[in-house]
Amino acid sequence: MSTAIISNDKMETFEKYESVVRSYSRGWPTVFEKAKGYKIWDVDGKEFIDFFAGAGALNYGHNDDVMQEKLIEYIRNDGILHSLDMGTTPRKMFLEAFQETILTPRNLRYQIMFPGPTGTNSVESALKIARKVTGRDTVISFTNAFHGMTIGSLSVTGNSFKRHGAGVPLHHSVFMPFDEYAEDQDSLVYLERFLEDNGSGVALPAAIILETVQGEGGINAARMEWLRKIETLCKRWDILLIVDDVQAGCGRTGTFFSFEPAGINPDIVCLSKSIGGIGLPMAITLIKPEYDKWGPGEHNGTFRGNNLAFIGATEALRYWETDDFSNEIKASAAFIRRQVDSIIDRFPELKGEARGRGLMQGIAVNVEGLANEICAESFNRGLIIETSGPNDEVVKFLPPLIIDQVGLEKGFEILNQSIKHVLSN
Amino acid sequence: MSTAIISNDKMETFEKYESVVRSYSRGWPTVFEKAKGYKIWDVDGKEFIDFFAGAGALNYGHNDDVMQEKLIEYIRNDGILHSLDMGTTPRKMFLEAFQETILTPRNLRYQIMFPGPTGTNSVESALKIARKVTGRDTVISFTNAFHGMTIGSLSVTGNSFKRHGAGVPLHHSVFMPFDEYAEDQDSLVYLERFLEDNGSGVALPAAIILETVQGEGGINAARMEWLRKIETLCKRWDILLIVDDVQAGCGRTGTFFSFEPAGINPDIVCLSKSIGGIGLPMAITLIKPEYDKWGPGEHNGTFRGNNLAFIGATEALRYWETDDFSNEIKASAAFIRRQVDSIIDRFPELKGEARGRGLMQGIAVNVEGLANEICAESFNRGLIIETSGPNDEVVKFLPPLIIDQVGLEKGFEILNQSIKHVLSN
Amino acid sequence: MSTAIISNDKMETFEKYESVVRSYSRGWPTVFEKAKGYKIWDVDGKEFIDFFAGAGALNYGHNDDVMQEKLIEYIRNDGILHSLDMGTTPRKMFLEAFQETILTPRNLRYQIMFPGPTGTNSVESALKIARKVTGRDTVISFTNAFHGMTIGSLSVTGNSFKRHGAGVPLHHSVFMPFDEYAEDQDSLVYLERFLEDNGSGVALPAAIILETVQGEGGINAARMEWLRKIETLCKRWDILLIVDDVQAGCGRTGTFFSFEPAGINPDIVCLSKSIGGIGLPMAITLIKPEYDKWGPGEHNGTFRGNNLAFIGATEALRYWETDDFSNEIKASAAFIRRQVDSIIDRFPELKGEARGRGLMQGIAVNVEGLANEICAESFNRGLIIETSGPNDEVVKFLPPLIIDQVGLEKGFEILNQSIKHVLSN
Amino acid sequence: MSTAIISNDKMETFEKYESVVRSYSRGWPTVFEKAKGYKIWDVDGKEFIDFFAGAGALNYGHNDDVMQEKLIEYIRNDGILHSLDMGTTPRKMFLEAFQETILTPRNLRYQIMFPGPTGTNSVESALKIARKVTGRDTVISFTNAFHGMTIGSLSVTGNSFKRHGAGVPLHHSVFMPFDEYAEDQDSLVYLERFLEDNGSGVALPAAIILETVQGEGGINAARMEWLRKIETLCKRWDILLIVDDVQAGCGRTGTFFSFEPAGINPDIVCLSKSIGGIGLPMAITLIKPEYDKWGPGEHNGTFRGNNLAFIGATEALRYWETDDFSNEIKASAAFIRRQVDSIIDRFPELKGEARGRGLMQGIAVNVEGLANEICAESFNRGLIIETSGPNDEVVKFLPPLIIDQVGLEKGFEILNQSIKHVLSN
Repeated sequence: MSTAIISNDKMETFEKYESVVRSYSRGWPTVFEKAKGYKIWDVDGKEFIDFFAGAGALNYGHNDDVMQEKLIEYIRNDGILHSLDMGTTPRKMFLEAFQETILTPRNLRYQIMFPGPTGTNSVESALKIARKVTGRDTVISFTNAFHGMTIGSLSVTGNSFKRHGAGVPLHHSVFMPFDEYAEDQDSLVYLERFLEDNGSGVALPAAIILETVQGEGGINAARMEWLRKIETLCKRWDILLIVDDVQAGCGRTGTFFSFEPAGINPDIVCLSKSIGGIGLPMAITLIKPEYDKWGPGEHNGTFRGNNLAFIGATEALRYWETDDFSNEIKASAAFIRRQVDSIIDRFPELKGEARGRGLMQGIAVNVEGLANEICAESFNRGLIIETSGPNDEVVKFLPPLIIDQVGLEKGFEILNQSIKHVLSN
Repeated sequence: MSTAIISNDKMETFEKYESVVRSYSRGWPTVFEKAKGYKIWDVDGKEFIDFFAGAGALNYGHNDDVMQEKLIEYIRNDGILHSLDMGTTPRKMFLEAFQETILTPRNLRYQIMFPGPTGTNSVESALKIARKVTGRDTVISFTNAFHGMTIGSLSVTGNSFKRHGAGVPLHHSVFMPFDEYAEDQDSLVYLERFLEDNGSGVALPAAIILETVQGEGGINAARMEWLRKIETLCKRWDILLIVDDVQAGCGRTGTFFSFEPAGINPDIVCLSKSIGGIGLPMAITLIKPEYDKWGPGEHNGTFRGNNLAFIGATEALRYWETDDFSNEIKASAAFIRRQVDSIIDRFPELKGEARGRGLMQGIAVNVEGLANEICAESFNRGLIIETSGPNDEVVKFLPPLIIDQVGLEKGFEILNQSIKHVLSN
Repeated sequence: MSTAIISNDKMETFEKYESVVRSYSRGWPTVFEKAKGYKIWDVDGKEFIDFFAGAGALNYGHNDDVMQEKLIEYIRNDGILHSLDMGTTPRKMFLEAFQETILTPRNLRYQIMFPGPTGTNSVESALKIARKVTGRDTVISFTNAFHGMTIGSLSVTGNSFKRHGAGVPLHHSVFMPFDEYAEDQDSLVYLERFLEDNGSGVALPAAIILETVQGEGGINAARMEWLRKIETLCKRWDILLIVDDVQAGCGRTGTFFSFEPAGINPDIVCLSKSIGGIGLPMAITLIKPEYDKWGPGEHNGTFRGNNLAFIGATEALRYWETDDFSNEIKASAAFIRRQVDSIIDRFPELKGEARGRGLMQGIAVNVEGLANEICAESFNRGLIIETSGPNDEVVKFLPPLIIDQVGLEKGFEILNQSIKHVLSN
Repeated sequence: MSTAIISNDKMETFEKYESVVRSYSRGWPTVFEKAKGYKIWDVDGKEFIDFFAGAGALNYGHNDDVMQEKLIEYIRNDGILHSLDMGTTPRKMFLEAFQETILTPRNLRYQIMFPGPTGTNSVESALKIARKVTGRDTVISFTNAFHGMTIGSLSVTGNSFKRHGAGVPLHHSVFMPFDEYAEDQDSLVYLERFLEDNGSGVALPAAIILETVQGEGGINAARMEWLRKIETLCKRWDILLIVDDVQAGCGRTGTFFSFEPAGINPDIVCLSKSIGGIGLPMAITLIKPEYDKWGPGEHNGTFRGNNLAFIGATEALRYWETDDFSNEIKASAAFIRRQVDSIIDRFPELKGEARGRGLMQGIAVNVEGLANEICAESFNRGLIIETSGPNDEVVKFLPPLIIDQVGLEKGFEILNQSIKHVLSN
């Protein structure tokens, strides 16, 4: 996200009272008020097409009608809102729906853990249980991985700016090259050598953690073959495989779990962001029964029982009862890929490179600063998009999965105009 | 919390699908459905008095009428629900209300950071910024401290069961004895010696982090004089003072911040749990302007913009516009203290010891296992209370602050009967 | 040691070619040439009384006649000098002599490890094996401990200047107050509370490591009763007790091991400095048979087989065949204590405090900078003494154990004159 | 080194009194007594050709006549033996000779540090000063590196058995693939990508530490071109280059420093093993003047002033006054290479692979256990050789540099017979 400081009267409260850590309100200097589907409006009534979707937390769009009704009804009936990990009706309904709609049809066997309502809580819990059951401390992570901002998750996150923010050295993690990291090199050859060689300096790890598509790291999509090889390696060496599907899961790439096309079966899966359906804080950690070796309360947290989120989550699972939603996402993804290719062709000055898959795509712009300028101009013209990558060099497209053809066309029209404008200055 | 496994049909879904890490649903084996004020009902319509208040997240009780109305209205109007750290109307209103109602009247100057929606996020952000601005890595924490379950927060948490769950050694923290930790010893004498002695092995720390009343650690209330001495030490050695007011703050001890009676002015304050008013996930970190040295986005998180929580939070601040609420809490606190003293007198078999202050009190029961039995029996009779302390030895009273005399009396009646019952078996 | 830069022509080579890390050659700016017993001569023929004894490495004085002869004979016969941990005749003779002369008469059962030829090697090996056999990582150490300068030993060393030199945070150690660390506080009360309390934040340690008399830390002698209590604690909690007897051992306090008067039986003992007899590099680690669980070569080092040192070491053991040597040391120690008391009386300006026991005594001078001035003046007048303590505040007396009455008197005469001179300026 | 337990009466003392950590005395179960040049004799008078040279500590052979004389003379004259870092005549002479004979002719500018008398002391000091002057904590090391057994050095050592012996996780190091580590992969491509990519998870390191020929790691010789590229990388990223020349230095590869043929100029160089000439404990750390930023005494140690070693060291430097010695080593190296090639040809069952350069060569035997059998049989027949490599798979040839043609031929004759014998069984 660009962090250029653009200021105006509307933003005074935020500038005056908030910490300087705030970032999105710098790049998009307005006050947002309403949102529906793939559209957002600010206090002046200006309309924006949303190609950002709450950084992947709004896959089902803003304010789904049915979810809204269910929330309102629950509140009206004095439904219990906050319940830690006590039994409640919405929690029960979510557990059952997730089992029936998601796990059973996919032949997946996982215990469901509520680790606290954010992605980093899920990752921290995954790392803990992997270390506990294996009795090992090292976790292998990949270049440009992003797994969260608390110290455990940050240890397996690649970004140096964010790592430096820890204020302490980060340990117990080893970084290996992600798929296609360096030209003409096979990233798995080294990983394998390090594991098999007693003298490599890298201890047998508790787990390998990965995103199938790295979102913050620059929309880098691993090949299915690479994922399968990683799984094979994990099995050979008795290493747990953790898929952090916080951003790429919940349908973002076209299937509920991003790893489905690879046919792999991770030992632990982290879900958050869109799991709550309507954008409310929620996360779950899926753990194979044989690794679910927690003591009661060994990991806990105050907001593990956000019942409004459970209601949104349960409702969202209806989207996955048939294949229709998945097929629609794939059609939208194909459209976006054509748009991306056309932009790269049309604007050779971008030195553009297509990235990603599903509704998690982007254009790497190999000219310093240009990606941020394009996002800023798009905002002015009514399109919300952000950058990612180690140098903010990728223009990232993450529309809500429910976006229609009209919305996609409108968005890319604004994008094309914005690029043209930026390049002409 | 007792984790004895009590099972029944009602709990089948949780037992079958959830991870074994679940804890509260073991001690209170039912499915809760509705809640209002200081009461909760389960699916069978059984009513419970709530002396637990969401582990301190429900200071204003369940389902406050006005908050409910505001939430429903916002949802109905398609108000933006999820917004990261973008500007939104509810965020703006909260920032302004917090400044006017809380900070300005208390002459406190803090920048407000939204670190993610949980207490541990707030603590992690506090530790990071303290380390960044001082350039030091050690943080001093106290015996029986509880600051959260992600690796950074867990490093400054005392509980060995929870620390062991990390699966890795926890570093950069030094534990010092909390106030009145060991008989006839002045805990600050050692702290001071360690700081002033170049040969002590303890480096000058970035920060000292403390709870003024340790909740999970056993309802240990520090004396005001001790808090003032800690502040003096911090100033002398240029150490940042972090008060983790996640559980003891938001009025729990009678004043908005728990440290107000001590007259101290911490450099960083962590708030979560009840800050969202109605039990929705939210947290803030208050940082003195001179220490607010973050880079934009140096700490971030997907759920920093939970607008429903901002609405609850803003409404909750109305309680603090006059001194009335504070006075009511103090009256309730005095009532509870009398009840506690009377129980200790009446049941010498408990070897009971009064703990805590405000509406954060407890009875340390110095007979192994007894505290858990009392809580279990209370649940059967319709009172929700839990234990705390390193050996679950403290029966803890954390009713909603809005509880009335009737509720308190009812609760203690059940408690007295439960103790009598347990002791007679 | 004072590090004031005093320069002269004689020192040019050192100043020009050596690293600035050099320290003793700054405080004693001359080139030493010969040494015998308790005397040293520099290139100008100036004679010095040695109250320093190679920082405790020359307990048997310089150039013992018999040792010299044995070394020369061995070299003349082409005896193997360097042998790692291969079997050699001098190694065999040392092992047998140490068993017979030291271990058997004291009813001590230890396996002897050659960990490399320095004290820090011995400490590193002790920490490793303690962690291996217990499966725990934390080691408890004490304020003002000094155990060496490699990262493992430095982690349990208190001095902040030396710790800071590591360039990395030092982990897996917890510092507790040494005996009589803070006025009116019982240092063991806290240690015990930390161990017994599940919420203390201090994990059950692999070991407790201590010096019975802290040399570098300021000549702090623990009381025998305190040592016995530590041993009791260790037994109760199944913690290994490591005595670092590198400086206080080999007779320095009057008995071969410094802990003999306490009647304790440590699990691991580190010896170096004077173990080689004539000042050649050597160290051993004594490990109770039940804890000697190394894999072959799991700890190693190139200079574990310094045969000249083994010859000196074996010869030195003859001093311990009867009690005579021990008795002589005690007589000298009593003389020194009287001298110390008399100095403290005679020069109240020193605000002096007597420290230590055996031939490891000192005067804490509670006036900033004064101890260093006294040592510098003593050097000018022909007495080699150095300071120790976190602020170089203790004038330290470590004469060779073989010093006679004449030598002691001569040394204290110079010291008295030097103090008088310094105080009169 | 093979650790098969072979026992006999001769070894009883060692088996009974020494720790089980001993290793060489297991593979070579005899008691050695005398040694001269490249020969050793045991107590039974059995003669051995030495192709081991004290693991590289006896480059000038055993008991050089002149060195012996100088040692004896010094001892006879009551020369000061132990002196920490005080000025002494032998220290002065060594400093001057090293400057004149080694540094000046090679146009190298280094301050000389005496870090304690072992290789690991030198490495620890190198890591410390690199971290101090850069203010960074990470050090990059390579697969199969061996740098020592104390915690700092062990952190940058690859061997998993030895790392595991630490008993604690080892931090602040990142392992990169050594030259030609994995087939068809360019090891520097990844190193470069990790350094240039802000998202790689690998922080800018304080230093890169390497051995130009990895001894313990399997006699892996880096190509000169690879070394030059590493130096270029270091310069580009402002990383300090540390060459650990403890085993490969002091002429082992044909030049005094092993890196001379590459034409590189490391920032820090570690020397030990043969630096003392006759096998006595000694080490030095060479630091470019601009990085010599120690405080006085910031790193220290009791045995920094081993004057007998200084005398051997100074005498040894005479070998380097002309090019003759270097030329002789190269001739011997060529002879060994021919022998190695001939063995690989003659015994295809070995699946042998030639390794190393100079007098640091070996044969990787790709049949499990075979290398150890060959060494054991060679010992029986009068040749001292050991294995190295992560699986003890390399038969290693490290004869003293002063070995003559007769010695080499004799050694290889025994080796050939031993291989033949082993293969025929």
